[in-house]
Amino acid sequence: MERRSKKSGLPPGSLVHIGERKNGEVKITVIKYDAAGFQEREAKTLDECLPDKEKPEVSWINVEGLHQVEIIQKLGDCFGLHPLVLEDILNTEQRPKIEDYQDYLFIVLKMLYQERGPEIVTEQISLVLGSEFVISIQEGLDGDVFNLIRERIRSGKGRIRTMGADYLAYSLIDAVVDNYFAILEKTGEKIETLEEELVAYPTSKTLHGIHGLKREMVFLRKTVWPLREVINVLGRGESLLVRDTTRLYLRDVYDHTIQVIDTIETSRDMLSGMLDIYLSSISNRMNEIMKFLTIIGTIFIPLTFIVGVYGMNFEFMPELKWRWGYFTVLAIMAAIGLAMVAYFKKKRWL
Amino acid sequence: MERRSKKSGLPPGSLVHIGERKNGEVKITVIKYDAAGFQEREAKTLDECLPDKEKPEVSWINVEGLHQVEIIQKLGDCFGLHPLVLEDILNTEQRPKIEDYQDYLFIVLKMLYQERGPEIVTEQISLVLGSEFVISIQEGLDGDVFNLIRERIRSGKGRIRTMGADYLAYSLIDAVVDNYFAILEKTGEKIETLEEELVAYPTSKTLHGIHGLKREMVFLRKTVWPLREVINVLGRGESLLVRDTTRLYLRDVYDHTIQVIDTIETSRDMLSGMLDIYLSSISNRMNEIMKFLTIIGTIFIPLTFIVGVYGMNFEFMPELKWRWGYFTVLAIMAAIGLAMVAYFKKKRWL
Amino acid sequence: MERRSKKSGLPPGSLVHIGERKNGEVKITVIKYDAAGFQEREAKTLDECLPDKEKPEVSWINVEGLHQVEIIQKLGDCFGLHPLVLEDILNTEQRPKIEDYQDYLFIVLKMLYQERGPEIVTEQISLVLGSEFVISIQEGLDGDVFNLIRERIRSGKGRIRTMGADYLAYSLIDAVVDNYFAILEKTGEKIETLEEELVAYPTSKTLHGIHGLKREMVFLRKTVWPLREVINVLGRGESLLVRDTTRLYLRDVYDHTIQVIDTIETSRDMLSGMLDIYLSSISNRMNEIMKFLTIIGTIFIPLTFIVGVYGMNFEFMPELKWRWGYFTVLAIMAAIGLAMVAYFKKKRWL
Amino acid sequence: MERRSKKSGLPPGSLVHIGERKNGEVKITVIKYDAAGFQEREAKTLDECLPDKEKPEVSWINVEGLHQVEIIQKLGDCFGLHPLVLEDILNTEQRPKIEDYQDYLFIVLKMLYQERGPEIVTEQISLVLGSEFVISIQEGLDGDVFNLIRERIRSGKGRIRTMGADYLAYSLIDAVVDNYFAILEKTGEKIETLEEELVAYPTSKTLHGIHGLKREMVFLRKTVWPLREVINVLGRGESLLVRDTTRLYLRDVYDHTIQVIDTIETSRDMLSGMLDIYLSSISNRMNEIMKFLTIIGTIFIPLTFIVGVYGMNFEFMPELKWRWGYFTVLAIMAAIGLAMVAYFKKKRWL
Amino acid sequence: MERRSKKSGLPPGSLVHIGERKNGEVKITVIKYDAAGFQEREAKTLDECLPDKEKPEVSWINVEGLHQVEIIQKLGDCFGLHPLVLEDILNTEQRPKIEDYQDYLFIVLKMLYQERGPEIVTEQISLVLGSEFVISIQEGLDGDVFNLIRERIRSGKGRIRTMGADYLAYSLIDAVVDNYFAILEKTGEKIETLEEELVAYPTSKTLHGIHGLKREMVFLRKTVWPLREVINVLGRGESLLVRDTTRLYLRDVYDHTIQVIDTIETSRDMLSGMLDIYLSSISNRMNEIMKFLTIIGTIFIPLTFIVGVYGMNFEFMPELKWRWGYFTVLAIMAAIGLAMVAYFKKKRWL
Repeated sequence: MERRSKKSGLPPGSLVHIGERKNGEVKITVIKYDAAGFQEREAKTLDECLPDKEKPEVSWINVEGLHQVEIIQKLGDCFGLHPLVLEDILNTEQRPKIEDYQDYLFIVLKMLYQERGPEIVTEQISLVLGSEFVISIQEGLDGDVFNLIRERIRSGKGRIRTMGADYLAYSLIDAVVDNYFAILEKTGEKIETLEEELVAYPTSKTLHGIHGLKREMVFLRKTVWPLREVINVLGRGESLLVRDTTRLYLRDVYDHTIQVIDTIETSRDMLSGMLDIYLSSISNRMNEIMKFLTIIGTIFIPLTFIVGVYGMNFEFMPELKWRWGYFTVLAIMAAIGLAMVAYFKKKRWL
Repeated sequence: MERRSKKSGLPPGSLVHIGERKNGEVKITVIKYDAAGFQEREAKTLDECLPDKEKPEVSWINVEGLHQVEIIQKLGDCFGLHPLVLEDILNTEQRPKIEDYQDYLFIVLKMLYQERGPEIVTEQISLVLGSEFVISIQEGLDGDVFNLIRERIRSGKGRIRTMGADYLAYSLIDAVVDNYFAILEKTGEKIETLEEELVAYPTSKTLHGIHGLKREMVFLRKTVWPLREVINVLGRGESLLVRDTTRLYLRDVYDHTIQVIDTIETSRDMLSGMLDIYLSSISNRMNEIMKFLTIIGTIFIPLTFIVGVYGMNFEFMPELKWRWGYFTVLAIMAAIGLAMVAYFKKKRWL
Repeated sequence: MERRSKKSGLPPGSLVHIGERKNGEVKITVIKYDAAGFQEREAKTLDECLPDKEKPEVSWINVEGLHQVEIIQKLGDCFGLHPLVLEDILNTEQRPKIEDYQDYLFIVLKMLYQERGPEIVTEQISLVLGSEFVISIQEGLDGDVFNLIRERIRSGKGRIRTMGADYLAYSLIDAVVDNYFAILEKTGEKIETLEEELVAYPTSKTLHGIHGLKREMVFLRKTVWPLREVINVLGRGESLLVRDTTRLYLRDVYDHTIQVIDTIETSRDMLSGMLDIYLSSISNRMNEIMKFLTIIGTIFIPLTFIVGVYGMNFEFMPELKWRWGYFTVLAIMAAIGLAMVAYFKKKRWL
Repeated sequence: MERRSKKSGLPPGSLVHIGERKNGEVKITVIKYDAAGFQEREAKTLDECLPDKEKPEVSWINVEGLHQVEIIQKLGDCFGLHPLVLEDILNTEQRPKIEDYQDYLFIVLKMLYQERGPEIVTEQISLVLGSEFVISIQEGLDGDVFNLIRERIRSGKGRIRTMGADYLAYSLIDAVVDNYFAILEKTGEKIETLEEELVAYPTSKTLHGIHGLKREMVFLRKTVWPLREVINVLGRGESLLVRDTTRLYLRDVYDHTIQVIDTIETSRDMLSGMLDIYLSSISNRMNEIMKFLTIIGTIFIPLTFIVGVYGMNFEFMPELKWRWGYFTVLAIMAAIGLAMVAYFKKKRWL
Repeated sequence: MERRSKKSGLPPGSLVHIGERKNGEVKITVIKYDAAGFQEREAKTLDECLPDKEKPEVSWINVEGLHQVEIIQKLGDCFGLHPLVLEDILNTEQRPKIEDYQDYLFIVLKMLYQERGPEIVTEQISLVLGSEFVISIQEGLDGDVFNLIRERIRSGKGRIRTMGADYLAYSLIDAVVDNYFAILEKTGEKIETLEEELVAYPTSKTLHGIHGLKREMVFLRKTVWPLREVINVLGRGESLLVRDTTRLYLRDVYDHTIQVIDTIETSRDMLSGMLDIYLSSISNRMNEIMKFLTIIGTIFIPLTFIVGVYGMNFEFMPELKWRWGYFTVLAIMAAIGLAMVAYFKKKRWL
């Protein structure tokens, strides 16, 4: 939340980078391909950026790193992007969305990583889909899910080289959504571990674990839920940039998104159930302890009273003189104790 | 969840079997019928798969077992199915859905079994409905609800032989939905058992039982809810593959689905109510125990104090010398005890 | 739930009676009327069932009892009803619904009775509304709300004889909905009784009462909610069988249904509030008890310690020899006791 | 609820008064006005009721008191009202609604009063809006919010005399909605009082207060929510009886209704929060008491054990003979007590 | 709530100031600008208010302070505003809304401040957007977010001078929404502080803090939620006053509103989770205390009973005479104590 306010008061379209990752170099990769061949190039600047209008090939410009605002500015000039698009690319606190600017579609996605620590890290991925180009802008984390798509383009396997820019955009979105399954499998494992703890011996660590996962689920839900709408809009076919053949594939990735949301909802339900079980098992344990105290106390308090009676120092207490007084009292107390145990057993308190 | 990620990075339409059941042979049954007669054949391969275009008969190809990917591949080639359809058939983690590919409809259903253990087992059933054929693909569990339909075709009783492929598809869906009632009756019995336990003597086993059933209900709901939409779309008559006469029957099975969902919702409400009753009966029991302790303690603590007073060893304690001192004290203590019991009775604590 | 599964595997349209009431004879009443006159006849069989096409009169066929399947079958043949309609008539586990079969409308309602015991009993009422006839099929309970309508037809009072079959159907629905108010008044009285118990002295019986009523409300809601939609569809005027003049009356009964639903929702809210009050008054009582123990214990535990000190048998304890030792100790203990009581008063624990 | 069932079985349109207020005389006021002048008359009967067709003036007939059914009947005859309208006017258990009968609109509102006691009292107000007349029927409570509108007509101030019957109807509705704000201000004050109690010293009276207000809010919500829809329909301009100029005013009163609903929702949220705070402050107090007991008990129980040890009567107990035995034991006990207090302080229990 | 009722009974369009801020002078600023230049003027009265029809420039009239009703009246006369608009401007208890009066749009916004105390203060901002003018009316708080926009107009930087009145209105709305981020960042910091308290040592102050923030969130939600709809309507392009070029910018500020709502929802979820954690950590602490008491009590109660036995004064108690009686009893008691500790350890109560 912190950094958003530094843009307050600036006119719309002001290019300010809002995000955490600021070091390292910005890396630009340009891949051009058609069914016949492909061409790959890495660059530091954007000298010749415009796709070759003559050739019917697809250009994919991938930018990693946002902290050099002038590169994004250049990109915008090259491809005629609206200032608000550039502003949104630089602001990494967007929610997933799609905007139709006639000549191109602007899409914001959220990539999720959980590689180094327990925390889930998000990376904002902005896509600009034109009729013959795709621009993808990442914040620049190491693990890159787009490598597999580059591999597919290089090898020429599958449909990708024979289809247009829209299919490339679909492939990128598909890679992002596929990655969500990996994240969900990891949280699924964590849930299982917590469930085992819950059965064995739940502690307040278990509680914090459940709450942590619940919060994670809220976070995931917030990330994936708008994506569903993005893909729905994309596949609905209102933009001419998306061909009919690609739309079938978008329906497929839409299904996957629904499946991800379903899994998130199920996990939330499970976590709520686990919270209930935690609370009642904690209170069960407490009750067991209290019951123990009650039984010990209830048995011994009357007995202690009795021994107190015969500890009184009255001069005239006939029982004290009796030969078998002591043993009689012991016997009576044993009888009371046993009667109480029997009573508790009958009441199922023992 | 676990296995889904092994498809990450593969291009769409890659045929990978995701599912648990992998052993045994794949079994293919082909039934062709019209009003006049029928013909049944079992096969291991798919040599002559295409329905005979000349004859106005209905072909039903049933495949049990998914683990031989090449059979599904062959099926796809024979009937001209889209690669995404084949991919979805092989991925047993689909939610129920319907997809319209003009020439055919692709439907995913979930069959439920609860025969061997307490757990509900799901089997994915994929249907492909063409103008003159139905392909049904099952994961290959033993109990087969489709046998009754085969029986009906063989005997020629009822409408089935005189109607088209859409009616056959309806019959298969109807069989799946009918089976849900059996599952619900079993869970209904479990709920009744738990209710009796709840009235008699609820233990933490009861609690786990209630939570287990609640989770089962969430699971059932997730399975049946999208089915409602599937049947709705099918019956709405947007596809020419579904005739008007069949649509009435689809409305009927739609009603059944609503009834199933209703029962699930009611069961969930009942289970929530049972949870509340469990919690308050546990806390009632606890309170009863605590009350017992309190009463015993409150009666004896002052009395124990009194006997302690006369157990003091002061040299000058006039009461100790009194003739009736002991009995007076005993009487006073009895009076205090009785007064307390009366007070508790008045306060309704006893 | 139990009996539904006996239809599993049967082809659609199989006539199987699913319901509890099976004894007694089926009773068929046929009333024909127009503005000029009326004619009433009771029958055991259905020999001449078709309404007289020539005469512009309304025929009302009322069937009480479902267990003779052949009568329903005959009825279906006479009036050309679809097999699925007959199947639904025989299955008493339908939810309220309306289905438009062009020539006739098929309506399922639920009648509620609470005459003999605390339980609410439902009776399924199926209506078939044709252009000049109404068929009403009941399960055959004793209390019959339709008698008042028969009375109105016989007496010729009101509009009923001058209006068509649709007005008759409306009157039957209206009678059913009117009856819901009686049920709600009874549950309203029960809620009031429980509220008085709650103020006076709530016990676990009160809790079970509240939960029982809550479940009843869920049940009522489930029964009335779909009826709202049924009447809405009927009054929307899509079927030519319902005339415009009758539609005003349907809007009126629709309002009544909304009122019933409103009352149910309000009762549910009240019951939830009562549950909260129950729980907090129980825990209040518990707290009062615990506080009592605490105060008694906290006052006497230190005093008991003091008397224990002077009950020790040390040879050299100077206080024991003092002339006023005993009384000093008694005074000190009284002071401690009073100080504690004052402290508790200040803290508002007493 | 009680009285509704006395209409069961009666044909629709039967005029039965359902309501509590039955004594006193029915009062009829007729006001006729146009921009030029106005004329006011009070009546007991309805002899010449029809508005003068020739003159372009607005007639406002106000009826106070419902228990003389024949007056309502006469009114219906005069203005050609549908029997169902008359039935609804007489049944004071309607929810707010609007019905379009082409020639006139029928509107039901609920007036709220809270003048005499803590309870909110409702009065049903029925409006019939024709092209040149408004009929308003009240149950006949004393406090009359319509006086201010009469005042405005008499004085000729504002727009009211220059506008039509629809504007008059709007003014009546506006007066009813304005009154809701007064009710809400009173409940707002009650909420503030309860909040102060909650901070100072919450008792079970506070709890009942919160629950009472919550129920009041549910009641208010039920009253105002359908009104929103009524005004919306009125302002949507489907009826020709409502002119475009008046529609702007209806949008304004619609806004007020939304504001009322908003305030109710906010109050409900606040009350829920207060309930949570009540419960946790009660349990906090309980915990404080229990902690006190625990600390007293935990300190004195071991000490009492020690003094018990030296109160034993064994012949051979060396410590008893020691010169400083008594004082040593006292010192040890003091040390134990202080150590415990220190331990509790460290654990933050004190 | 308090002041709203003083308008009860007044005719619609009555100009009554409802609000808290009444002191200080009303300040009127008029800025006229076009791409070529700008002109700024401060005024106390509204002599020449109408925008110059000939010149294609934009006029921005900003009024700070509502308590001089005659100024608002004058404004209304100048620009031909509807009386209801003026009434709404003066009533500071509006919710955000938009109303289309053909010639102009009337928009109500809520500005939020949190500068001086912990409370969030709202200021109502009314905008009237005509084809060539914008009127903005504020309640007149010190901190003015519009200064930055004035700065932009003066400097001529950015697009603002080249665009129309609609863009100015957009800029004002954008400034208001941008300010919400600052408020949310502050509450975000408060949430973090509370979370740290929750981990360290939660007290009832923490609870009140959580409840306070929750209420703040409800308040924020109520403020921002209708704004979303306002901007949506504005950007949907139904009014000709909003040009297509501005609509893109409105979509951007719409996105920001969604982001604000998202953050509010997330904060609410977090606060709910924190409440759960608070409650369970409080009950955990309580349980720890109770466990301590139970263990101390359970160990010492039987031991105290034993020493009581040997404190009895029976004449014939053989053990008392034994040489090692005392030490044997001490040893037995130590053994019992250790056994209990071992038992508790095994049960994991220690």
